[in-house]
Amino acid sequence: MPTPDAIRATVDAYVACFTDDRDGWVGCFAPEATVEDPVGTDVRTGHASIGEFWDLTHAMADAIRIERTGPVRVAGSEAAWPFQIRTTVGDADMLLDVIDVMTFGDDARITSMRAFWDMADLRPA
Amino acid sequence: MPTPDAIRATVDAYVACFTDDRDGWVGCFAPEATVEDPVGTDVRTGHASIGEFWDLTHAMADAIRIERTGPVRVAGSEAAWPFQIRTTVGDADMLLDVIDVMTFGDDARITSMRAFWDMADLRPA
Repeated sequence: MPTPDAIRATVDAYVACFTDDRDGWVGCFAPEATVEDPVGTDVRTGHASIGEFWDLTHAMADAIRIERTGPVRVAGSEAAWPFQIRTTVGDADMLLDVIDVMTFGDDARITSMRAFWDMADLRPA
Repeated sequence: MPTPDAIRATVDAYVACFTDDRDGWVGCFAPEATVEDPVGTDVRTGHASIGEFWDLTHAMADAIRIERTGPVRVAGSEAAWPFQIRTTVGDADMLLDVIDVMTFGDDARITSMRAFWDMADLRPA
């Protein structure tokens, strides 16, 4: 089982890489990891599909970043943590509150990610 | 599927009842609901076992309350939300950061709850 510190280090890398380091961000996931974002939609599996997801999120905005808004709650080999997605489209800065729920492998890479958010909560930053 | 407003109303009742309304709090759950608190421990099932859990949490403190620390993220019939548990034991006020992940039935009662927290994060308030 990964240590809490190793899990937190993966989340830190995930946040840091999300803006403009596609390979670094995809590398936070295990090769056969799953992504359900948002919860209730089709599940993506594997690095290629997760990379496509990164491309989609970044194609929708001129700039995009993640800002963690509270501590990472680690429980065993799982964790949940709150953040805001902040996007710039033209002159508009928008934000959206999200919670990611993740499971981790022994090497502390992400084996599954489920993202809780509702587009109705999107609002000006 | 319950509406996002109905899900948020259940979470509001859950927070309001937790301090001293055992029946109101247990009634936020469906009769056969499951509780895994913290994630990774044995799962409780049903109102009687969930009521015992309420008794255990309240026996450990002179006073206990929940304070939500960010918005409820609703995704379909599920939701995740961040909060702090604040307890008073003698002269000591302590707090612990938690994220609850819940599923809801058509009547917006909770059908499952999983709580993410780590006792190592317990600290003075």
